Amino acid sequence: MKIALAGPGAMGLLFGGYLSQKHEVTLIGRNRERMERVRTEGVRIREADGAERVYHPDATADPRQVKEADLVLLFVKAGESQAALESVRHLLRRETLLMTLQNGMGHEQVLSQYAAWDRILIGTTNQGSYRLDEVSVCHSGLGDTFVGAASGDVGRFASVAEAFRECGFPCELSGQVRGMIWNKLMINASSSVLSGILQVPQGYVAENEAAWSLAQKLIREICAVASADGYPFSAEEQIERIRRHLQNAAGGYTSVYADLKAGRRTEVSVINGAVVENGRRLGVETAAHEMIVELVHAMEGRERNG
Amino acid sequence: MKIALAGPGAMGLLFGGYLSQKHEVTLIGRNRERMERVRTEGVRIREADGAERVYHPDATADPRQVKEADLVLLFVKAGESQAALESVRHLLRRETLLMTLQNGMGHEQVLSQYAAWDRILIGTTNQGSYRLDEVSVCHSGLGDTFVGAASGDVGRFASVAEAFRECGFPCELSGQVRGMIWNKLMINASSSVLSGILQVPQGYVAENEAAWSLAQKLIREICAVASADGYPFSAEEQIERIRRHLQNAAGGYTSVYADLKAGRRTEVSVINGAVVENGRRLGVETAAHEMIVELVHAMEGRERNG
Repeated sequence: MKIALAGPGAMGLLFGGYLSQKHEVTLIGRNRERMERVRTEGVRIREADGAERVYHPDATADPRQVKEADLVLLFVKAGESQAALESVRHLLRRETLLMTLQNGMGHEQVLSQYAAWDRILIGTTNQGSYRLDEVSVCHSGLGDTFVGAASGDVGRFASVAEAFRECGFPCELSGQVRGMIWNKLMINASSSVLSGILQVPQGYVAENEAAWSLAQKLIREICAVASADGYPFSAEEQIERIRRHLQNAAGGYTSVYADLKAGRRTEVSVINGAVVENGRRLGVETAAHEMIVELVHAMEGRERNG
Repeated sequence: MKIALAGPGAMGLLFGGYLSQKHEVTLIGRNRERMERVRTEGVRIREADGAERVYHPDATADPRQVKEADLVLLFVKAGESQAALESVRHLLRRETLLMTLQNGMGHEQVLSQYAAWDRILIGTTNQGSYRLDEVSVCHSGLGDTFVGAASGDVGRFASVAEAFRECGFPCELSGQVRGMIWNKLMINASSSVLSGILQVPQGYVAENEAAWSLAQKLIREICAVASADGYPFSAEEQIERIRRHLQNAAGGYTSVYADLKAGRRTEVSVINGAVVENGRRLGVETAAHEMIVELVHAMEGRERNG
């Protein structure tokens, strides 16, 4: 397959590197110098056991250099989707598949401005990765990737799942991928965003009584919205699952934490914002998520002013 | 009048200093060395125009040294009320007046464990003061002090208001003092607490769209609760008043800001917590204030752990 991957962050480098083992992958980024380093030095991936290997996808800062693609894979941050899609618009022919594994929910609305609904794949991954340097990442999380169709039967996309699998990513097609996305949002829109707001490691959210009470409030609202959306979640089960997750990864930091610390825009709009939007659509109250979205935006504004 | 004043912080020093001009005032604090400095050097008050004057109330770290009082005045932070009242319990005879001008709402419940309801004065002041050093303050805010009765007719307390007035504090008795307290809480429980959470100067709360939206949400809830409590406030009027206040004092910092910055416990329990408690009592929803209370407690815990 010819794969164009927009957004060579930590996750983009991981997926681009692995997929380049069997496919013609081109990473598309905005930083010319960095793309040139990827092209000449390759992508270095350090596995959890310390083993390192270098992969050689192509890379460019000039999307026009890429002439065609069977699959366009979007890994930019949510706020950059529109610009990234504009830059690869010429690749999006009738038959081209357009796929997102971005964090959060609702990306298909943006993608559908650039591709037909039946060409759009949405998904979620439990793979994890963080940057070591400009061209190197640590492959910190293993786990399944779930791929679904934005519209219609997912079976059509068997070759995509197979492409991921043969390059080392456990991957399943799912008719319930939206449920998987809700499942991931459950943590991102509760404990992860709170650890960012409080600027604490994740474990603190379960340890501190007040923080944990806030997290539970957020989880209950997500469960109510997801259930109204046709994906029934038990709040008590989710609370228990997330508590265990926080205990197991107590010292870990989240992307909202890192973004707020660095004064960057966060992805809160597609995380807690997605809960609010779906709540409005489905007539479910999401007062706590509304406040969290505003609070994080207020914090983002502060950083940019400061 | 013999006045015992517990809590020689910035406001305690200001009131103790001024009142000592015509009354026998004893400041009671916990820091022996500091109380000794107040006793020997006096309290230095710098006025807004730069003029400085030294006042000479008595001061002690040993409440037992104080044998009697006509009026016990409480200026400790909310979390220390109980301990302070225990330490002056021997002064609280049947006829002794017990008065609070503390920030927030609901102090009379604590005071009533130590004095009969008909001896308790509650109030609120627009005086302002901040510490320059251990025995010096800057008198940064002028304005009325309103005094009311926790129970019964306020007229009985004319001599107290007169005592404040003759020492330089504009002071009025008010049968509506609870309304005055709501009025002050309107700012403290909205923009002030947000400026603390966001760690920004107050003006930012009106300037940043998301922060201002949060502030308005908090103001609306306070107005709803205060109105249910018998003190009707128009949310639109209050929003406009607070917006102007924030513009006029844009560079100012609030006590919640200073407390969170320094890793101290804040007074959020008697500020936003009072909105929540009164909301519960009166059957008015206060979801936003509930979240703010938990968020600030989560931040306090973080600082104490850190």
